[in-house]
Amino acid sequence: MATITLIGAGNVGHHLALQLYKAGHTISQIYSRAIEKAATLASLVNAEAIADFDALDKQTMIYILAVKDDALEDVAYKLQAQNIQQGIIAHTSGSVPSHIFEGKFEHYGIFYPLQTFSKQKAVDFQALPFCIYGNTIDTQDQLFQLATSICPNVYLINDQQRATLHVAAVMVNNFSNFLYGMADEICQDHQVPFDILKPLIQETVSKVLEHSPKTVQTGPAIRGDQQTIKKHLDFLDNYPHYQEIYTKISNGISKWKSVEPV
Amino acid sequence: MATITLIGAGNVGHHLALQLYKAGHTISQIYSRAIEKAATLASLVNAEAIADFDALDKQTMIYILAVKDDALEDVAYKLQAQNIQQGIIAHTSGSVPSHIFEGKFEHYGIFYPLQTFSKQKAVDFQALPFCIYGNTIDTQDQLFQLATSICPNVYLINDQQRATLHVAAVMVNNFSNFLYGMADEICQDHQVPFDILKPLIQETVSKVLEHSPKTVQTGPAIRGDQQTIKKHLDFLDNYPHYQEIYTKISNGISKWKSVEPV
Repeated sequence: MATITLIGAGNVGHHLALQLYKAGHTISQIYSRAIEKAATLASLVNAEAIADFDALDKQTMIYILAVKDDALEDVAYKLQAQNIQQGIIAHTSGSVPSHIFEGKFEHYGIFYPLQTFSKQKAVDFQALPFCIYGNTIDTQDQLFQLATSICPNVYLINDQQRATLHVAAVMVNNFSNFLYGMADEICQDHQVPFDILKPLIQETVSKVLEHSPKTVQTGPAIRGDQQTIKKHLDFLDNYPHYQEIYTKISNGISKWKSVEPV
Repeated sequence: MATITLIGAGNVGHHLALQLYKAGHTISQIYSRAIEKAATLASLVNAEAIADFDALDKQTMIYILAVKDDALEDVAYKLQAQNIQQGIIAHTSGSVPSHIFEGKFEHYGIFYPLQTFSKQKAVDFQALPFCIYGNTIDTQDQLFQLATSICPNVYLINDQQRATLHVAAVMVNNFSNFLYGMADEICQDHQVPFDILKPLIQETVSKVLEHSPKTVQTGPAIRGDQQTIKKHLDFLDNYPHYQEIYTKISNGISKWKSVEPV
């Protein structure tokens, strides 16, 4: 079991603290610039709340930085000033490279749960993938063990792979949600309940869980059905931005034509 | 129970014939230009296979046209030449208006199962939405009853609503599959298993089943996180078309900023 200090009491920090505590680890301290935020979370996991880096427990085995991407470098400098010798410094970001820690700490790495977090909703740590990386084998082992204690799907992922995953995650998560929102908007505008589409949304996903997406692509663009595409573009005349997106994606799909469908 | 003639033995015809037969309806004939295709399907549902419109059973209650969109008008003319007086003529297309039947037949409508069909995969008629329309109340009633006998989710949908649904279906189904394909491609190119993303794909969908998509939008674009967006665009330098799509969708998302997130 590890002793952990958590820097940041936002969504990611919140869920990680609860999960690590539940798994039997000791949460020594929770830091937040807003002491009441730190205190609320600390009270749930039997930890000390701090809002001052000078109060930092220097003996913690692992310091997890669950702060916003653009605050990471600044926090790293502040931790460096505390002269931490033994502990591992790891951040939870999908897009910030690990080398921001280089030269500042002996042992550092990444502790990145790949999922969208919102405080209202419980996070299923059984399902999410956990990406870890350590600057040494020993650091990597410790972070791997820690991740494995709360999640069955742990991957060793280096900085370049993580950068790839982050872009890909934006596509499959944020961008597909945007498509749902576009569809919802045009349905609402034309008195069609968006609910009708939900079985189709589920079917689309269940297909991609079993097949490579390019091989199961359907629709007018992959069929080269210009008549339907034109009809749809006409329909979108009042939505010029959606029209552009429709065109760009259809062009993208038509380039996949050479891929053999199943 | 209805007596049905099915024109077309492709994917949609295949699944409809099996389902209607299973529900106890009589499939009188199955027409296909390729007689062996018609025969294969006909043998499964105890029907007669025909490849000549002159052989058409004129007493069938409902003629279901499950042919390609661009063949519909031609088939309608050929059926008109057969001088069908009583039967209902209905097609299964999402995008062709019902008025292609106007002036040709007394009773006509739409019998449109909103789902992607592939012959290899069983279709869950319990889950899919069925959209029907009839040119008279009586026709509508009969098509409604027929649809209800094989599917619990039947909607009365007029031509304009169906056109809307068809565009929206392309967005949530074909286009989101395209996003998965983009993500798969960049993962493969960078030695990252696409499987890592599958829990995130499922989580994204489970969110939209419960919430309005615009209210649960996450990611760099809705946060206005230009630094991450720039990083991602740099990453996509070798994928100029994906880069354009990334930009267009991100711009679209940022316009949603005024929508209150949950």
